[in-house]
Amino acid sequence: MDKLQVIKIGGNILDDVSQYQRLIAAVKKIKGCKLIVHGGGKVATRLAEALGIKTQMLDGRRITNKEMIQVVTMSYAGTINKRVVADFQKEGINAIGLTGADGNLIEAKKRPIQNGVDFGWVGDVSGVNTNLVETLLSHEMVPVVAPLTHDLEGHLLNTNADTIAKEIAVAMASEFQVTLNYCFELGGVLTDVNDTTSIIKELTKEAYQVYTKNGKIKGGMIPKLDNAFHALEMGVKEVRITNVDGLTNLQNKNYNDFTRIH
Amino acid sequence: MDKLQVIKIGGNILDDVSQYQRLIAAVKKIKGCKLIVHGGGKVATRLAEALGIKTQMLDGRRITNKEMIQVVTMSYAGTINKRVVADFQKEGINAIGLTGADGNLIEAKKRPIQNGVDFGWVGDVSGVNTNLVETLLSHEMVPVVAPLTHDLEGHLLNTNADTIAKEIAVAMASEFQVTLNYCFELGGVLTDVNDTTSIIKELTKEAYQVYTKNGKIKGGMIPKLDNAFHALEMGVKEVRITNVDGLTNLQNKNYNDFTRIH
Repeated sequence: MDKLQVIKIGGNILDDVSQYQRLIAAVKKIKGCKLIVHGGGKVATRLAEALGIKTQMLDGRRITNKEMIQVVTMSYAGTINKRVVADFQKEGINAIGLTGADGNLIEAKKRPIQNGVDFGWVGDVSGVNTNLVETLLSHEMVPVVAPLTHDLEGHLLNTNADTIAKEIAVAMASEFQVTLNYCFELGGVLTDVNDTTSIIKELTKEAYQVYTKNGKIKGGMIPKLDNAFHALEMGVKEVRITNVDGLTNLQNKNYNDFTRIH
Repeated sequence: MDKLQVIKIGGNILDDVSQYQRLIAAVKKIKGCKLIVHGGGKVATRLAEALGIKTQMLDGRRITNKEMIQVVTMSYAGTINKRVVADFQKEGINAIGLTGADGNLIEAKKRPIQNGVDFGWVGDVSGVNTNLVETLLSHEMVPVVAPLTHDLEGHLLNTNADTIAKEIAVAMASEFQVTLNYCFELGGVLTDVNDTTSIIKELTKEAYQVYTKNGKIKGGMIPKLDNAFHALEMGVKEVRITNVDGLTNLQNKNYNDFTRIH
């Protein structure tokens, strides 16, 4: 079975020149099949501001009304996706940018109103076109996926990039030995958010449950780790929570300065 | 040799709901390999206005400074390309959206300053990745190309959509029997711009030279037809200048209400 590295790049990396440059160098180093999913960063929020459109967040998720889906489409599929693709191409990485609509890569269902909350044009993934991914990988392309899905009714839907990366990793796991990398600004899962060296090197499900109970793991890390454990249960071989430097050192077997979940 | 229809969609079609709907129906009807190149329409100009960025035109071409290349990237690769892809997918057309950077589809050189005129981030096509197009077509995908190229140095470049369509048509002509369709709001090349029925049914190079000399063909039609004749000289089988209805009737051999150049 071929190996596939699915790499989700957090928005803060895209917003930081130094981390972004190191990311490109890291992706270039990684041998074999790889697929990138990028987050949104501050681009959409800044564009919305410039256009006088108010950003509404609920539990860290963006409420995506009609104006906001246009803003995130411009930002994610336009600004960010094309910047990453062009920068990768410059370095000889044969990137091809995609949203969920392109080649019907990712179908989703518009999230229904729940408990009176309407997230708007937000989608929950219902299918991944693994044939398309396989075709692109077999032609040595590197898919670069924007966090947008579609409903097959002509609508793009805003979907969390961590979730998209997980869903693609899971879907590809029947044909590839998949490692899912959540690459963000911290070195891994920390037991103390004020101490960047407090990285948990290996995280089991049991330990995770203890850490969440005693409050050492909390906030935005919880949906990320829920995605991670779900991915493992669904056949993904390993999940890594890492910063850009951890990604650079993927090939180095002795390097373990990231959180490994397997 | 397989047939390939390269179809350039003018911006005015994208801006008109009725023409746009008829376009989608027409593309759905066309059998076999097809590739779409879309123009910009008013989306970029409107976005620039909303962001307080001034649009400068010279001879009908947009001067593309640093702010404007960001605006056209958002508009062409984001808003328009994804709208077309999602709408095509809704109708079962397996569209995949691309800029010139994606899969290194179209390389270009940044246009040098000529006679004191700096068009900015504008590119002149220097190469088309025919392998990528063939791969996508052989997997029954319909490439939907935004009018953006790249310089392999990490920069997207604004490039005229008519020219991109011509360059792709020419590049594919060694492997396919290519028809290049310039689809816009008029029925074809007119001898009288005030009479939409004055369509030239067949246009030879000799007749074209006469029409331009006596001023019956002028303005924006000239670079379009220069592209058309260049395409023919370079191996494209036929060029059609047509509106959406002409495109719909492509399969009908008796229908000739468009300009045929061959």
